[in-house]
Amino acid sequence: MNDCIFCKIIKKEIPASIVYEDSKTIAFLDIAPASPKGGHTLVMSKNHYELISEISDEDVKAVILTVKKLSKALLKFAEGLNIIQNNKRVAGQLVPHAHFHLIPRFVGDGITVEKWSAHKYKDSKEIEEVAAKIKKLL
Amino acid sequence: MNDCIFCKIIKKEIPASIVYEDSKTIAFLDIAPASPKGGHTLVMSKNHYELISEISDEDVKAVILTVKKLSKALLKFAEGLNIIQNNKRVAGQLVPHAHFHLIPRFVGDGITVEKWSAHKYKDSKEIEEVAAKIKKLL
Repeated sequence: MNDCIFCKIIKKEIPASIVYEDSKTIAFLDIAPASPKGGHTLVMSKNHYELISEISDEDVKAVILTVKKLSKALLKFAEGLNIIQNNKRVAGQLVPHAHFHLIPRFVGDGITVEKWSAHKYKDSKEIEEVAAKIKKLL
Repeated sequence: MNDCIFCKIIKKEIPASIVYEDSKTIAFLDIAPASPKGGHTLVMSKNHYELISEISDEDVKAVILTVKKLSKALLKFAEGLNIIQNNKRVAGQLVPHAHFHLIPRFVGDGITVEKWSAHKYKDSKEIEEVAAKIKKLL
């Protein structure tokens, strides 16, 4: 897409610290890393899709293999790893080109992305109603 | 694995609100949803792997197709969606059976998983050194 900053990186119209690419996917460093030690990497399809639900089966399979490859590399020096993929503005998606954040983790790094509050379903009826709703939408 | 709670759910030894399963993958509701409206779904391989980097290529491709399928369904009622996969205890992994969290998002829901602090690389030399280190580990 013409006005997509990630498409411009993919077409090499603007520079980035690319760590891996193949015919279908690319991985480069986020210039504003969540980790104070850096290494926060973005992985995406070279074809432009806004949401994960829109990526073709072929491209999404290629993307997850690149996520796996980078995860293996990052876990050689990081103590842990968060993989985060945000869809739509309300979920924190800043660039409308579907991408995975790979965030290397270290003890005491102050990152809190995995710290959400746990809610509760009222009872088994409520959770079964939600499950039934999702099953109907599949 | 015998003492893995997710393996027990997969083998139907303990109950869960399963919304989807096929020969390789399963999706069920998290009983402690991050979203106050519920619908927080876990997706994983039926085969036991601890980390994303350890999942076989065949199984990880099956898992991402199920993540995509569920994402499409959840985005029919949610305003946004976070997909999170935590590796190792320091990154918030509570059950050592690699799994993706799909968290439906709504305006004003108070969830902050996507709100990390952005750090900065000192200069282009520093970011290029980090990129070179990762490339060597691939």
